[in-house]
Amino acid sequence: MADEVVLLDFWPSPFGMRLRIALAEKGIKYEYKDEDLRNKSDLLLQMNPIYKKIPVLIHNGKPVCESLIAVQYIDEVWNEQSPLLPSDPYQRAQARFWADFVDKKIYDLGRKIWSTKGEEQETAKKEFIESLKLLEGELGEKPYFSGETLGYVDVATIPFYSWFYAYETFGNFNIEAECPKFIAWAKRCLQKESVAKSLPDQHKVHDFVSMLRQKFGIE
Amino acid sequence: MADEVVLLDFWPSPFGMRLRIALAEKGIKYEYKDEDLRNKSDLLLQMNPIYKKIPVLIHNGKPVCESLIAVQYIDEVWNEQSPLLPSDPYQRAQARFWADFVDKKIYDLGRKIWSTKGEEQETAKKEFIESLKLLEGELGEKPYFSGETLGYVDVATIPFYSWFYAYETFGNFNIEAECPKFIAWAKRCLQKESVAKSLPDQHKVHDFVSMLRQKFGIE
Repeated sequence: MADEVVLLDFWPSPFGMRLRIALAEKGIKYEYKDEDLRNKSDLLLQMNPIYKKIPVLIHNGKPVCESLIAVQYIDEVWNEQSPLLPSDPYQRAQARFWADFVDKKIYDLGRKIWSTKGEEQETAKKEFIESLKLLEGELGEKPYFSGETLGYVDVATIPFYSWFYAYETFGNFNIEAECPKFIAWAKRCLQKESVAKSLPDQHKVHDFVSMLRQKFGIE
Repeated sequence: MADEVVLLDFWPSPFGMRLRIALAEKGIKYEYKDEDLRNKSDLLLQMNPIYKKIPVLIHNGKPVCESLIAVQYIDEVWNEQSPLLPSDPYQRAQARFWADFVDKKIYDLGRKIWSTKGEEQETAKKEFIESLKLLEGELGEKPYFSGETLGYVDVATIPFYSWFYAYETFGNFNIEAECPKFIAWAKRCLQKESVAKSLPDQHKVHDFVSMLRQKFGIE
């Protein structure tokens, strides 16, 4: 039986982008379904009854929810091509630590940057830059977080780059001036087709965030 | 070289208990160091510079932080005895999903139960019971979440049981009346020596929480 793979997603979601990149790295054909989050499909509600959130990977009818769990699943099932997690247990634990760090820090801080003002926004910007600097420290002189090839931490982190122009515009700061090594790494990732075709244009994300700000009454 | 294993922990921490259970299940000897969180040791600050939090597993001098990541590490390194994660990738993804669910729901809701009052507390109690009912649904008729033997989700979840008496006392509700199957599962887990010796007495945790409430000025 050929594998039937469906991705329930929403185009600006950095979490969905992780799955798009992982599936592209593995060369897996799949059906992409963009959800209307104001009017969620019956399939989404049925496949993720706990959180009712995208992304959901549906493999031969069975759902895998939560993006980092789904990326690990993809890596374990299609393990012959482009391994994402290292084989050494200690290196795996370190990769999981940094992917989890991105989950705990980058999304929430990014959201605060575009959705708050004044002191709250300034604090978020400061913590955001501090978090990127910690990631720069982990990256060191390696081309990718995992070494010579794109791996789990890269896949977990690079989607947020598509939101950077929105963060910079609405936060009125310049990320590259503070974290040039991080931006150099992001541009390196984008040279890979698996990444380039999975991330939306930064200006399109900016317009989406601008629409959200209007909706939430943020001037 | 014999493995040198050190656990930096704090006795009431459900996250630390996860590592104690996993190490006990694997039959690994280790040095237990209880931290004074108001005066953290240099070793803790050095081993977990990012979060400065317990638990930290130190294996031959190298730290593994974040409890679920450390439990997976323990399972991968000492994989011959008492496997915790299932070998099938789909079952592994499901186990990771439910362990992550416990992380996202149980700790925060439990904290709200003992640290808030009025409507906020009532909402937390309701969501806490709803979360346990979802866990009961996942457990079904199996003795453990993973089937016939104690596994990853059991290890991730059972530590919170040691806080239930405190939740019930300060939340003024009865968990067993609402979720009898969950409590039956908890008592089943506690029949295992690895669990029983890793969890503190519920009354001791209650007294600790009572002290925290005094400290934070909660009457």
